[in-house]
Amino acid sequence: MPVSPITFFFDFSSPYAYLASTRIKAIAARHLRDIEWVPVLLGPVFEATESRPLVEQPLKGDYARIDIPRSARFYGVPYHQPDPFPIATFQAARVLIGLQQEDDPHALPWLHACFAAYFAHNRNIAELPVLDAIGAEIGLPAGTVERFIADPAIKARLRANVERALAAGMCGAPFMVADDQPFWGVDRLPQLEHWLQTGGF
Amino acid sequence: MPVSPITFFFDFSSPYAYLASTRIKAIAARHLRDIEWVPVLLGPVFEATESRPLVEQPLKGDYARIDIPRSARFYGVPYHQPDPFPIATFQAARVLIGLQQEDDPHALPWLHACFAAYFAHNRNIAELPVLDAIGAEIGLPAGTVERFIADPAIKARLRANVERALAAGMCGAPFMVADDQPFWGVDRLPQLEHWLQTGGF
Repeated sequence: MPVSPITFFFDFSSPYAYLASTRIKAIAARHLRDIEWVPVLLGPVFEATESRPLVEQPLKGDYARIDIPRSARFYGVPYHQPDPFPIATFQAARVLIGLQQEDDPHALPWLHACFAAYFAHNRNIAELPVLDAIGAEIGLPAGTVERFIADPAIKARLRANVERALAAGMCGAPFMVADDQPFWGVDRLPQLEHWLQTGGF
Repeated sequence: MPVSPITFFFDFSSPYAYLASTRIKAIAARHLRDIEWVPVLLGPVFEATESRPLVEQPLKGDYARIDIPRSARFYGVPYHQPDPFPIATFQAARVLIGLQQEDDPHALPWLHACFAAYFAHNRNIAELPVLDAIGAEIGLPAGTVERFIADPAIKARLRANVERALAAGMCGAPFMVADDQPFWGVDRLPQLEHWLQTGGF
């Protein structure tokens, strides 16, 4: 019986999604699951939840500035608080969608390279030259980044991803769904793994 | 060298604080720490963070209704979603403060009995007769509950607890502080324990 993948909804601007992206593959592999990576934009999620970026919220922002780098150290993941933060990530998302649609093996390298560029090396992935450089680093043909960013079908697909995420109940990032069960946050990975292990609890 | 206690800020109306209250003692014991239980009110915390109860927020409320009972099952803690929820808990908090101030050994039994009454047995601890019954069940002399609830010095102390919590950065419940390091949420207990184990990371 084929098993369903783990759906991983995320925004490239979410530090907790970055942390989770470094850990979810081992969990999926242990339980013979694929991962479906679904880039979305947090802007519409904040709108739907009547919220806003954590770091802009009183008290929660101060806590987040402690918790994010501490969580990275806890998980052993390289982290450097980027500045500016947060940023617009629709371009990075569109390139990922383009690579995914063409079954290009660069899709996953692009995903991890963008996350690492922003959260480990303080490179502003909202800027086109940075995205071009990342493309070159992972071996994308010149012009690929621009082509995907300008593609109207890809723009529409990103909007559709957002709609799908909201319909799945996404209220923050990362938002993961396994066997119709939602898990929000890198701190829910232990519950997600326990769910896969036990078939539901 | 005496070590500082773990400060546990909470509201009796927080399900995640209830879950954490069943787990923090083992962690503290493993690392030879005392726990300072500090009842507060989430109302002023929501005001300070420009937030409101999780279950009243779009999407996040739907998620919380899945995540809270699932987290209880994950931790093996009895849970029954109370109705009404959330409720006013200033009376339960005042009784705890009164018991704490008199070094009454019933303080901790009161704390756990109130949490369990509300979150495991759907007893509305906003109602005085329920609090009276809980008092009787743990062996408090008749009239103790009313005496503490009406005590102006205890009311002032509860307000002071809230001020202290906000000054410590409390942005939700449970909010725990160990060695000046803040930890928000039952899901941060692993980081809290790792902090105690390593002396900071």
